[in-house]
Amino acid sequence: MNAEIISVGSELLLGQIINTNAQFLSRQLVLLGIDQYFQTVVGDNRLRLLQALDIASRRADIIIATGGLGPTADDLTKETIAEFLNLELALDRQSLERIESYFARMNRHMTDNNLKQAMFPKGAVILPNDNGTAPGAVIEKNGRMFVVLPGPPDELQPMYLNYVVPILKRFSNACIYSKTVNIYGIGESNVEKILEDLIESQTNPTIAPLAGDSGVNVRITAKAGSEAEAAMMINSVVETIKKRLGSNIYGYDDDSLEAVVISLLRERGYTLSLAESCTGGHISNLLTNVPGASEVFLEGCITYSNESKITRLGVQRETLSRYGAVSPQTAIEMADGIRSSLGSDIGMAVTGIAGPGGGSEEKPVGLVYMAISTGSSTEIKRCLFNGNRLKIKHRTAYELLNWLRLILLQRVNH
Amino acid sequence: MNAEIISVGSELLLGQIINTNAQFLSRQLVLLGIDQYFQTVVGDNRLRLLQALDIASRRADIIIATGGLGPTADDLTKETIAEFLNLELALDRQSLERIESYFARMNRHMTDNNLKQAMFPKGAVILPNDNGTAPGAVIEKNGRMFVVLPGPPDELQPMYLNYVVPILKRFSNACIYSKTVNIYGIGESNVEKILEDLIESQTNPTIAPLAGDSGVNVRITAKAGSEAEAAMMINSVVETIKKRLGSNIYGYDDDSLEAVVISLLRERGYTLSLAESCTGGHISNLLTNVPGASEVFLEGCITYSNESKITRLGVQRETLSRYGAVSPQTAIEMADGIRSSLGSDIGMAVTGIAGPGGGSEEKPVGLVYMAISTGSSTEIKRCLFNGNRLKIKHRTAYELLNWLRLILLQRVNH
Repeated sequence: MNAEIISVGSELLLGQIINTNAQFLSRQLVLLGIDQYFQTVVGDNRLRLLQALDIASRRADIIIATGGLGPTADDLTKETIAEFLNLELALDRQSLERIESYFARMNRHMTDNNLKQAMFPKGAVILPNDNGTAPGAVIEKNGRMFVVLPGPPDELQPMYLNYVVPILKRFSNACIYSKTVNIYGIGESNVEKILEDLIESQTNPTIAPLAGDSGVNVRITAKAGSEAEAAMMINSVVETIKKRLGSNIYGYDDDSLEAVVISLLRERGYTLSLAESCTGGHISNLLTNVPGASEVFLEGCITYSNESKITRLGVQRETLSRYGAVSPQTAIEMADGIRSSLGSDIGMAVTGIAGPGGGSEEKPVGLVYMAISTGSSTEIKRCLFNGNRLKIKHRTAYELLNWLRLILLQRVNH
Repeated sequence: MNAEIISVGSELLLGQIINTNAQFLSRQLVLLGIDQYFQTVVGDNRLRLLQALDIASRRADIIIATGGLGPTADDLTKETIAEFLNLELALDRQSLERIESYFARMNRHMTDNNLKQAMFPKGAVILPNDNGTAPGAVIEKNGRMFVVLPGPPDELQPMYLNYVVPILKRFSNACIYSKTVNIYGIGESNVEKILEDLIESQTNPTIAPLAGDSGVNVRITAKAGSEAEAAMMINSVVETIKKRLGSNIYGYDDDSLEAVVISLLRERGYTLSLAESCTGGHISNLLTNVPGASEVFLEGCITYSNESKITRLGVQRETLSRYGAVSPQTAIEMADGIRSSLGSDIGMAVTGIAGPGGGSEEKPVGLVYMAISTGSSTEIKRCLFNGNRLKIKHRTAYELLNWLRLILLQRVNH
């Protein structure tokens, strides 16, 4: 059983939008164990869509067409599929009522061309659109299934999950389940080396490392007869990886390092304050993206100017003039200063050169000092990061957050 | 003259990565005036890639294949194209030397399978890879041109721009040029209404509004015989749009609102300080993403706790207890406080409820007060934003930055 996605839309061929729908649907099909061999993108053009349908229906059992369900003349996906399958279009009263009530709810005027959105090939199963006006459809003919979905991702995704998955499940003969292990502090090639024997010998589950901006992710994917069986196969691999990578693992699946840090602080009952120079608020922003951060995060200071470092954090004017703003001495005073001013348990600070300007031979772009003050001690770390301004900000953030995570983990072991 | 992109890679069919290469190349082809009617994605599979090549070469003049140039056994794009075109592979000595020196420079060991990356179909023009080991190639046969590019975007993009564009230029019979007008403070449907006559009557240049997280962009695209001619056609439309949308336009093309604000501050010689509560550093982070922000941005305070608002900004304890942290009174005291502490020309503050928790009937999630203090006066604004935590943070940021922009614009008119 295999599927082919046909993405309909000239805006894709012009590069005006990126094909997130194909990625979303691909991931979903993997979860159902439905294979994909090809994907096609075609413009809003009747003849070329007919060609694409012809090719796809020769090589796939399920054809999923996305986009081109709008009210305007160049939206022709349903009409063209009806033509391809030699089916007439008929008005669906229930869809029309839903569209009318949608317009009423939005306080918008419904124009005549919206009628088109309630027309479907005869015999189609209609998929309600809970987030817009264009319903989708499933049509079965000649041993092929045609699924028609709207283009906007916030309409397509819920429609697929709520109405298409239950229909496709009957074609799914195996359960695919995957788990991601999130790693920081060790490079991709090193991760590969450490897991080499597992990666090479395993075919089910498969193990695939992927490097990103926030460390390395290892994805473990199992195919099994049931979800429980797949989970068991995956967990055994995860246990082996845990033994080898230890505290380099900071989380699983959608866990972000910032969310892990916030929950460690919560569990241990610690409060945090943060002084940022070169990262300019990026670390505070990451931490406060986590709901409930306010329980542990007391304040952040972005002390971009020297005056601010002096006034806000009590950094000594002499420290700045003797060692400079980017120095271990300044980092220590910043961390101690931010910690003591509100009496938080932990104070953190970063100072560095994010570039593109401001670097020198002695202090190049990418040089960053970071410090963590816990009252009993203040530790500092010197780093040199590659990349542009935004990459240096992000690498600094993740390096500091991971360092804090390791310190918090030790606290419970002691 | 038309092109078809064949993206090779099972990771695309599994949804593990998104097809950014297809978008990049599509945009580039538009600039050269080369049409695209179809795009295909195919897995790392010899027979299916042969099928895709067969179909594409029947309907396109230029076939651009991306991915599958790596050293491992499942990288088979070059080999399969050679088979399809009935060409032998031969070792290219120059490529081999480049690959060897790349490994030496990276201090990595070159394994035998990297030899494969220096093998090319006979007669191919070889495209050097300045950012990795896999060179690309251009092969012409039977009136078709086959372009082979590596999968990693940071290798593909410079290779395309530096080595493929000069070759494709000879197929380009018209110049396509586009400009984007960036708008904030007015919704997409309103923009459409105001520009309706232009959008409907124009075919060259075309005018297309697109709503995003940071306002509405209107893209004007012209096809002309020369870049100068296209620019003239576009500029005449831009002038009309400017007359209608006035100061709702904050910039063009890649201009971000934060970069526009930083450059307005610079031009006028103003310094800025910022106190953030619910946005948690997001606004400071945006501002400090702009190179040179340190010239005007003195400091930011993320006063997440009440104590921090009191200590850092001098907000009165009584204000907080009588009106609450999310109130116009608190916003005013925050803005005045941050401005006066370092004596910056402008102080800005936001306080609100980003959710998902913390809302009430009286003060719901999405309620935000923002204030701008200029010494002579302090203005405040009440907003109610929709969306999740991150969207509320971002909408707050853009609303405040745009407000500051309008205030700065007035300053020069007075």
